[in-house]
Amino acid sequence: MENLQKYVIERAAKAKEAFKTLGNADTNLKNSALIKMADALIENTDCILNANSMDIKAGKEKGMSKAMLDRLLLNEERIENMAKGLKQIASLPDPIGEINKMWKRPNGIMIGQMRVPLGVIGIIYEARPNVTVDATALCIKSGNAVILKGGSEAMESNKAISKIISCACENAGLPVGCINFIDTTDRGAVNILLKLNKYIDVIIPRGSGSLINFVVQNSTVPVIQTGEGNCHIFIDKDADLKMGVEIVINAKIQRPAVCNAAETLLVHRDAAEEFLPMISTRLFQHNVEIRGCEKTLEIINRCPFQEGSKLFLADEKDWETEFLDLILAVRIVDSIEEAMEHIYKYSTKHSEVIVTNNYMNSQKFLREVDSAAVYVNASSRFTDGFEFGFGGEIGISTQKLHARGPMGLNELTSIKYVIYGEGQIRK
Amino acid sequence: MENLQKYVIERAAKAKEAFKTLGNADTNLKNSALIKMADALIENTDCILNANSMDIKAGKEKGMSKAMLDRLLLNEERIENMAKGLKQIASLPDPIGEINKMWKRPNGIMIGQMRVPLGVIGIIYEARPNVTVDATALCIKSGNAVILKGGSEAMESNKAISKIISCACENAGLPVGCINFIDTTDRGAVNILLKLNKYIDVIIPRGSGSLINFVVQNSTVPVIQTGEGNCHIFIDKDADLKMGVEIVINAKIQRPAVCNAAETLLVHRDAAEEFLPMISTRLFQHNVEIRGCEKTLEIINRCPFQEGSKLFLADEKDWETEFLDLILAVRIVDSIEEAMEHIYKYSTKHSEVIVTNNYMNSQKFLREVDSAAVYVNASSRFTDGFEFGFGGEIGISTQKLHARGPMGLNELTSIKYVIYGEGQIRK
Repeated sequence: MENLQKYVIERAAKAKEAFKTLGNADTNLKNSALIKMADALIENTDCILNANSMDIKAGKEKGMSKAMLDRLLLNEERIENMAKGLKQIASLPDPIGEINKMWKRPNGIMIGQMRVPLGVIGIIYEARPNVTVDATALCIKSGNAVILKGGSEAMESNKAISKIISCACENAGLPVGCINFIDTTDRGAVNILLKLNKYIDVIIPRGSGSLINFVVQNSTVPVIQTGEGNCHIFIDKDADLKMGVEIVINAKIQRPAVCNAAETLLVHRDAAEEFLPMISTRLFQHNVEIRGCEKTLEIINRCPFQEGSKLFLADEKDWETEFLDLILAVRIVDSIEEAMEHIYKYSTKHSEVIVTNNYMNSQKFLREVDSAAVYVNASSRFTDGFEFGFGGEIGISTQKLHARGPMGLNELTSIKYVIYGEGQIRK
Repeated sequence: MENLQKYVIERAAKAKEAFKTLGNADTNLKNSALIKMADALIENTDCILNANSMDIKAGKEKGMSKAMLDRLLLNEERIENMAKGLKQIASLPDPIGEINKMWKRPNGIMIGQMRVPLGVIGIIYEARPNVTVDATALCIKSGNAVILKGGSEAMESNKAISKIISCACENAGLPVGCINFIDTTDRGAVNILLKLNKYIDVIIPRGSGSLINFVVQNSTVPVIQTGEGNCHIFIDKDADLKMGVEIVINAKIQRPAVCNAAETLLVHRDAAEEFLPMISTRLFQHNVEIRGCEKTLEIINRCPFQEGSKLFLADEKDWETEFLDLILAVRIVDSIEEAMEHIYKYSTKHSEVIVTNNYMNSQKFLREVDSAAVYVNASSRFTDGFEFGFGGEIGISTQKLHARGPMGLNELTSIKYVIYGEGQIRK
């Protein structure tokens, strides 16, 4: 344990030391490092695949689920995609050093807000080895040194990848210590990282709810939560119902396992008789299970029976659940107020949608629903760094402090005030 | 303890409930509440003074220092100033609902960033009763419900003030629970507040380093640190030395007990022979004690002796100390790099100043010094909400996450994305 402590602190101190140079590095230098990292991944494809096959083998022996194994698996295409991601981040504008506005005070001093890196970012993540590359690339581009603590399942893959990109980064001329992989499966390393306020400026956990919760509960270093998405779609009584069907289907089935997929559908009672038969037919066609309130079941049960349709009565737990699967909770509400009350009670404050043609209701929903992304007449699947136009993202924040919604390069920065004077003193 | 837990949770839950309404309240309603609060303070001056005299009496009995008693003391003028502060905050623009920019994506959806309140803010503070008013006013104006946990020394004053402003707030039509004073001297209440992630969105500690440290170490709720200021002034070799003298004197003596006062003076060796006699004479005239490096002492000791001058050899601890007093550490450095290295090592990252006429050095200092406010040729005393043009401030953040530098109304907000669609779905 003492050795572990020493090892982790050593890595963190190196990261802090590297930040002194990296934080002020030229954009060209950072971009060339990212491109060298991309090239190095491709060149070392075999080495990465070898390491990955060891993880896969170990995973199979441990009886890992098929879905988990798929998350863990790398192949040539996936490595190419990581390399592409690096180049894409290299092509984004560098936020560091940017001054958004300067203002002149009555005494003549000029004050500007300059964008600066956060410093040292600790990423604690689980199975996916691509996080090693994606998260690192965003950190380096925004001038932040990174400490990576991946899950034990992907240990060999992560070790190989981080070694390759870290060498490439140094070869490009950035200091040793910009990328620090914590090379141990000892979970104690996480506990140590979470207390290193002296060296680490922010911790970003990426993974399951229990991982995130553990980090929030135990970290003295500030944490940014990238969270669950129990997302809602409300079909208002004045909605274009055909549009509503397309939005619900897209938000539910286009990629059900992601955080911005819809989990609960709320339908205004005046729209329910017409809308529920339309949507349930389509949902059943796509093999989606419906867990509805009593009235929902009553209406759908009056429709002609469909082969293989899965329709169940919802219970309290269904309103709270992020299914991440082909399951949709459905509830009929009496009013927009009741819909918003339901969202207030059960939402994880990620993304919510109203489908309506009523102007006042659209404004009420946009203003009053307290989630990171609030939509009128569009699919919740757009809550994503690329779709918002930010380029890559390190996660989607569901907290309110520092960053909210898709976190791109800007969200990995802070500001400082730069003040130009001519001898002003305070009276 | 069980009762305390129940009591604190009850207050926090009330705050969260009140936020539902307060977060969407009209600007006019919030402003009229602030003005009613101001009027109520004036109307109830006697009641506040009575309560305050009880605190003062208890403080004297406990042998509280003169400086502490002065912080605690209220009089008519100080109550008037609190009322003025409330009206000043009422006159500031309301940040809530503001959309800074909207952009259109290729698929036609319009995305805007709307400013929203944080939610429920917990303020944990020490002796000054004016914090009860100032912090509350900023929270209410920015749509946040507030939970106040003041120090036991100011218990009676805080209780009286919070009761008065809380009644006025309700009379104006805002919901019960916008302002929640934790009416107990039991320090266990703080420990409970720090774990109420379900109800509290952010904790802001205001007071001594040990209070702040306790909160950072023990809170699972996100914390904004308002911190110490070990501020530096560097006199470069190309500095206008007269300007340098005025800036140092202002930054040291205009108000030595505040966080943006200068604590260490760094002087380029090529400027030292001329500058140190100039500045030491002025500092001694103002009764400032100098703790200098060996070379500093050598130069000053060659000057004609001044009656009552206090000159000592600095030790390592002096470079680290925020004196908050008429003491200045002074060190001669060989270069701007050595000055910046000193600042990197000892600064609390609050405010740093370079006095120079060298363009390249001014830019280097502005870019590379990693503090909340970095100045060229101006006094560090300007790091302040009013001086920056933000109006009132709830503190000066020395952390990088969420807010940095003077925290005004904007820093008590978050954003959400509002998305206007016309039926767009993700391909």
